[in-house]
Amino acid sequence: MTAVMGFLQSMLVASLYHMRSTLVIDIVSLHEAWIPKFFKFLGFNLLLAFGASLSLFLISPAAAGSGIPDVKAYLNGVESPVFRNFFTIKTFVAKVIGSALAVGSSLVMGKEGPMLHAGSILAVILGSSNWFKQKMDAASHWGTYTYNRDIRDLVACGAACGVCTAFKAPVGGVLFAMEMSTRWRKELTWRCFLVSAITIVVVKYSISICVSHGHCSYLQWGSLAWFQQAYPTPYGQTWAFVLLAVVGGWVASVFTSFNTWVCLVRKKWSKFFSFRILEVCVISIITSIVLFAVPLGGRCKTCDTQDPEHCVKGASMFMTFGGYGCSDGTYNDLAVLAFNPQGFKIQALFSAPHGTFHVTSLLLYSAIYYFLAAITYGAFIPSGLFTVSLIFGGCFGRIWAEVLLKLGLIDGSAAGIVGIYALLGAASFLGGLMRMSASMCLVLMEMTGAPNTLPFLMMVLIISKGVGDRFNYSVFDHQIMLKGFNFIGGIPEHIVNRAHLEAEDVMSKPKVSASFAVVESSENLVNTLDAHKTSGAFPVISVPARPGEVGDFMGIISRPSVMELLAQHEDEPEIDLSSKVEVAPIVIPPGMPLTFIYNLMQEQGVNYVPVIRCHGPLEGMVTRGDIVEVQNHKLDRFHVKEQLAQAASDIQGGRIIQSMMIEKQAAALREAITGPLVRARELAMKDIREHDELLDGSQ
Amino acid sequence: MTAVMGFLQSMLVASLYHMRSTLVIDIVSLHEAWIPKFFKFLGFNLLLAFGASLSLFLISPAAAGSGIPDVKAYLNGVESPVFRNFFTIKTFVAKVIGSALAVGSSLVMGKEGPMLHAGSILAVILGSSNWFKQKMDAASHWGTYTYNRDIRDLVACGAACGVCTAFKAPVGGVLFAMEMSTRWRKELTWRCFLVSAITIVVVKYSISICVSHGHCSYLQWGSLAWFQQAYPTPYGQTWAFVLLAVVGGWVASVFTSFNTWVCLVRKKWSKFFSFRILEVCVISIITSIVLFAVPLGGRCKTCDTQDPEHCVKGASMFMTFGGYGCSDGTYNDLAVLAFNPQGFKIQALFSAPHGTFHVTSLLLYSAIYYFLAAITYGAFIPSGLFTVSLIFGGCFGRIWAEVLLKLGLIDGSAAGIVGIYALLGAASFLGGLMRMSASMCLVLMEMTGAPNTLPFLMMVLIISKGVGDRFNYSVFDHQIMLKGFNFIGGIPEHIVNRAHLEAEDVMSKPKVSASFAVVESSENLVNTLDAHKTSGAFPVISVPARPGEVGDFMGIISRPSVMELLAQHEDEPEIDLSSKVEVAPIVIPPGMPLTFIYNLMQEQGVNYVPVIRCHGPLEGMVTRGDIVEVQNHKLDRFHVKEQLAQAASDIQGGRIIQSMMIEKQAAALREAITGPLVRARELAMKDIREHDELLDGSQ
Repeated sequence: MTAVMGFLQSMLVASLYHMRSTLVIDIVSLHEAWIPKFFKFLGFNLLLAFGASLSLFLISPAAAGSGIPDVKAYLNGVESPVFRNFFTIKTFVAKVIGSALAVGSSLVMGKEGPMLHAGSILAVILGSSNWFKQKMDAASHWGTYTYNRDIRDLVACGAACGVCTAFKAPVGGVLFAMEMSTRWRKELTWRCFLVSAITIVVVKYSISICVSHGHCSYLQWGSLAWFQQAYPTPYGQTWAFVLLAVVGGWVASVFTSFNTWVCLVRKKWSKFFSFRILEVCVISIITSIVLFAVPLGGRCKTCDTQDPEHCVKGASMFMTFGGYGCSDGTYNDLAVLAFNPQGFKIQALFSAPHGTFHVTSLLLYSAIYYFLAAITYGAFIPSGLFTVSLIFGGCFGRIWAEVLLKLGLIDGSAAGIVGIYALLGAASFLGGLMRMSASMCLVLMEMTGAPNTLPFLMMVLIISKGVGDRFNYSVFDHQIMLKGFNFIGGIPEHIVNRAHLEAEDVMSKPKVSASFAVVESSENLVNTLDAHKTSGAFPVISVPARPGEVGDFMGIISRPSVMELLAQHEDEPEIDLSSKVEVAPIVIPPGMPLTFIYNLMQEQGVNYVPVIRCHGPLEGMVTRGDIVEVQNHKLDRFHVKEQLAQAASDIQGGRIIQSMMIEKQAAALREAITGPLVRARELAMKDIREHDELLDGSQ
Repeated sequence: MTAVMGFLQSMLVASLYHMRSTLVIDIVSLHEAWIPKFFKFLGFNLLLAFGASLSLFLISPAAAGSGIPDVKAYLNGVESPVFRNFFTIKTFVAKVIGSALAVGSSLVMGKEGPMLHAGSILAVILGSSNWFKQKMDAASHWGTYTYNRDIRDLVACGAACGVCTAFKAPVGGVLFAMEMSTRWRKELTWRCFLVSAITIVVVKYSISICVSHGHCSYLQWGSLAWFQQAYPTPYGQTWAFVLLAVVGGWVASVFTSFNTWVCLVRKKWSKFFSFRILEVCVISIITSIVLFAVPLGGRCKTCDTQDPEHCVKGASMFMTFGGYGCSDGTYNDLAVLAFNPQGFKIQALFSAPHGTFHVTSLLLYSAIYYFLAAITYGAFIPSGLFTVSLIFGGCFGRIWAEVLLKLGLIDGSAAGIVGIYALLGAASFLGGLMRMSASMCLVLMEMTGAPNTLPFLMMVLIISKGVGDRFNYSVFDHQIMLKGFNFIGGIPEHIVNRAHLEAEDVMSKPKVSASFAVVESSENLVNTLDAHKTSGAFPVISVPARPGEVGDFMGIISRPSVMELLAQHEDEPEIDLSSKVEVAPIVIPPGMPLTFIYNLMQEQGVNYVPVIRCHGPLEGMVTRGDIVEVQNHKLDRFHVKEQLAQAASDIQGGRIIQSMMIEKQAAALREAITGPLVRARELAMKDIREHDELLDGSQ
C-alpha cells in the first residue's frame, strides 16, 4: 500500500514539475517589443489561472485553498459536511491539475500545501479499498462514541508522505503530521515513519534512475530539494539571528492578520462561483502587471561569469532574461527575481554570495511579494504558503544581512554568510506563520542538507513562534476559524488553568427536550432531532422511581441510531430505545477543571461527555497493577515474565546454563525462518492430494 | 534555567572527556616488556573499575546501570521507592564520577546512558529550586489522583538535553524523550525543543570558543560527534541493506535475551554490595585479559601513509600502537581496535576505506566485544549501550560489506561504501536493541552530519525494529521487567484488541476490607492500610439507604489523606472521612474494552479507575461545541472571533479599510515594546514616591 502511495506521489511530483517547467519555458522565450510581450505574458498567465479555477469549479470545488487547515481540523476530530467531498478522487484530480496550472501562471503561491492534501486523499482512497477495509473492520471499535480513528490515521500518514515528497524531507514530514494532529499514538509514529521511509526511497530511487537515463533534466527546474548547500556556523552572530527571528515572527503575524482580513472581504463578495473565478482572474492580472512593471526599478549587475546563460554564481540554473534595460554581460536583479521559476529563486536567495541582489531591489520585491501572497492565499485555486514563505523569508534574511554588512556589524568573510541569513529569515517567517517549530526545522535542514545549521534553525523557529504567539494564532488556525470548524486546541495550558472553569460552567444543562426517556414517543423523537440539528448524540434518562424525581442517567444514543429506530418502527407511536442505547464510556463529575476536560476530549477523541454528580454502587476498581498483570500474563507475546521466573528458579536450582534457554531462542529463529516454508509445503501437499483425489474420483 | 542546564551539561561533557582522555594516554604509553605491560594494563583498569563501583557504593548506589530503564519507567508513571534516591544531587555526583572512571577503565560500555540520567537529575534539581517550585505550585492540580506531571515533564526535558549533549543531536534528543515517554503533550514538544536548542547552541559555542583558544585539543579524543562524513547513496544496493537490517535486528534481540539471562544470574548472587563490587572487578580482569590477548590474532597491515602516528587513512587520530608483532610502517588491526579510545574506533569504523581491517579480525573482535558488552551491561557501574552498539554494529556492518565485496555482489567503487555499511550496521543493531526508530535515525544522522543517508537509516531502523519485535521486547523493557516496575505499555494495539478483555475481566472486585464507609472506625482504617500496602487509594462507599443493599460510590481517598486523618483524630474511635474524599475524575462502565482503558490510563495519567454500572441523575453534557465556545469566547487571548465578527460587520457596512484593524495591530506592537518600559518606570516612580514619603515621615 505504502509503496504504491510513494510511487503515485513521485509520479505526481514529476508530472507537476514537467508541466510547470514547460510552461515557464514558454514565458521565458519572450524576446519581442514591450507591449505585445506584456500582453502575451498577461494573457498566458490569465489563461492558466482561469483554467486552474475553472477546473476546480468543474471537477471539485473542495480542492480550493491549501487544504492544510481542513486536514488539520479533520485530524482534530471535527465533523463537518465539508469533509464529504474532501477525500475523493475527484478532489485529488482537481487538486493536481489546478495546482499545476496555478503554479505555471506565475501566481504568488506554492504547490506544497496542495501536495500534502493530495497525499492525504491518496492515503484515504487506498485505505478505502476493499482489502484494506476488511482489515480495518476486523479491528472493531467500541461504540459510535469515538470518531473514526483509522481514517484519521491514514490522513495523517498521507500528509506525512505529502510533505516528504514535496521537500524530500522524510523526518520533517512525520513531524509535520505529528504537530498537525491533536491526538498522536505511538503506533502511528512507526507507521508514518515506515510510509515516509518507503516514499523517500522510492522517490529518490526513481529520480536517480531517471537522472541516469538523462530524461529528467526538466525535473530539476522547479524542485526545491535539488541543492545541497554548505553554510558556516557563526556562533558570534547569534544576537543578529535572534533579532532577525523577532522581526520575522512579527512580520509573519502581521501577514496572518492581513490575510485574514483579505479572506473576510473575499467572503463577503464570494457567494457565487462566478465571482470567485473572476477574483482569481483579477489577482492574476494584478500579479502579471506588477511582476512585469517591477523590474523597471531594478539595478544592472555585472555577471559573475562570462557565460550569459549562467550569469549568477552559486545558482547555476538561474536565468538572466537579458534585456530589461541592461546590456549584455549584466543582469537586472529584479527581473531575475520576478521571472525565474520558484525553485531557482529559492536556490539563488539561499546560496548566492553577498551583493548579488541590491538591497533596494530586495526591499521592493519582497514588499510586492508579501502583498501579492497575502491576497492570493485563500483564493479559489489550490495554493500553498511554503514556497512563498521561503522566497519572502529568503529576501527578508538577505536584506537583514546586507544591512548589517553595510553597517559593519557582522563579519562577512565566511562563504555563504548571506545564505545562512536568508535561510534563517525563511525560518523566522515560517515559524511566525505556521508555528510548527520542530517540523519546519527538519524540513529546512533536510532541504538544504546542512545539519550544522540545526541549532540556529531551532533557535530562530522557537523565537519567531513565541513572538507570533504574542499577536495572534497561526495562519492555519485563522483559516480554520474563518471556515467555522469546531476546532479544539490552540490555547496554552496556563491560560486554561488561569480561567478556573469547571465542567459545571461549561456544560449545557439537560433540557427536557434534548434528552430521551427509555421509551419515547416517536413524535417527540422527530421533533427533538429537528430542533437540535447540530447534536450527534442524546442522553437517555430512566423513568424516575417516584414521580417528581429526576430519572437516572442510562446512557447515550446517537442520531443515526435514533433515525434507524424511527425508520424501523415507522407506525408505532412509542419506540423502545434501549436496544441502541450505549453506555457512556467516560463520565465526569461537575467539578472537573477545564484543562482536564480538554485533555480528555482531545486524547480520548470523545465528542460528548455526560456530567454526573453521584453514582450507583461500585462494581470494582481498575488499578495500574491490574493492567500490568493482564499485560504481563495474559497478553505477553513472549511470556517474558514466565521465562524470567523459570530461569530464576533454574538458576536457584544450580542449572545455570539450562536457564539461558538457548534452545528456545534457536527454536524461535527456526520457526521464523522455516515456518512459512513448512506452511507453503503443506499447502502444496494439500493441493497434490486434492488433485490425486480428483483423479481417483474421475477414474 | 535551561541555559544553566546546558552550560552545566557541557561542563560535564568536557570534564568527562578530559578525565577519560588523560587516562587513555596513560594506557597508550606502554612500551615495555610483555609481562609488566600486561600487569600494568590490568592493574590500571582494575583500579579504575574498582574506583567506579566503590564511588557508587559510597555516594549513591542508585546511580548504577544506565538509568534509561528507570527514567523510562518513571515517565510511564510508575511509583516506586527506587525513585526516592534517583533524582538527587548525590546520585548525580556518583553518576558523573563513576561513569568517567568506568569509561577510563577500558570496560566495554558507553557514557551516553549515564549522561541522559545526569541530564534528568540536573533538570529535576533545577526544577526543585524554590523559585521554580513556586511557579509550579501556582499551576495547581486537581486531586492527588493524577501523578506529579510537572516533575515528569522536567525529567523528559532533561533526558532530551542529555542525549543532545551526548551526541550533539538536538532533534534526536527531543525525539528520544518523546519515544521514551508514554504521555506527551504538545506544549512539552516546544519546551524540550527550546531546552535542546539552547543546550546545543551553548555547547557548540563553548566548544568553538574553546577550540579557537587552543585548549580543547583533548576534547577531540573521545567525542563521538567530531567527525563529519560524506556517504554515497547506492540505491541499487537496497537489498543488501534490507538483509543487513534483518540480521542486525536478530543479533540485537539475541543480545537482549543473553543480557537478560546474565542479569538474572547476577541477581541471584548480588544480594550484597561487596559481591557486586567484586563482580565489577572480575569483569574488569576478564576484559583486560581478553583485550590484551586478542591482538595476538591480528594481522599486520601496511600503513596508508608514511607518518607512523597517523597510519590509517580516514581516521587521522587513530593510534597504531606500534609493536604487537608488527614491524614499523605496519599496524596490527586488532590491536588498533582493542586499544584506541571509543570515539576513534567509531570514527575509523565509519569512515576508513575498504580493507583497513581484515574480515577475520573484525569477526574475532566483534564476537568478543558482543560477549563483553552483554556481561558488562547491568553491572554495578554506570554504563550505557549506545557507544557499544555503535562499535559492535560498525564492525558487523563492515564484515557484511567486506563479505559482499569479496563475493562480488556489490560495487565497491564509490568512496565510503564500506563506511555506509558500518553506519547502517550500527543502525540495525541499535534498532533491534532499543526499538526507537525515529530518534535513533536522527541521532545517527546528526552525529555523522550526512542527511543523504536518512532514507537508508529510516528503512534499516524500522526493519530491524520489526525483526526484533518478533523475538522479544527492547533491552530497556527487559531491564524494567527485571526491576519489577509496574510498567504499562509495550503491547501493540492489535494484540490488546484481539484479547477481547473488558473492564469487568480486569478489575479487582471491591472486598469489604478494601473500601471505606464515609464514617469508618479508626481500627478498621489502620487494619486496611496494613493489609493493602501496595494500594495508594481506596474507594469510599456511602451508607446504603436500606440495610442489605450496597451503598453508592462516593469517591476516592488517598493513602496519605487517610494517614493524615488518623494522625489528627488519634484518640477518636470513628473518623469522618468526607473532608478528604475526592470525586473520581474518571469513572468507567464494566463493558469498556481493555484498549480503551489502556489509553485512558496512559494518556490521562490516572492510576485508579472505579468501575460503575449505573449512575445518578444527569447534571449536564459537555460537547465539543461547548468546549469550542468557551475556547473562542472566554479564553481567546486575541478575541479573534469577536474581531472577525466586527470586521465582517464593518465590511458589510462598507467600511472595508477600517475593518483591517491596523491600529489594533500597531497598538499591540507598541504595547509589547513599551509595556515593560512603562511598568519599569512606574516601579521606579513608586520607589521614588515611597522614598519621599519616608523622608517626609522622618522629618
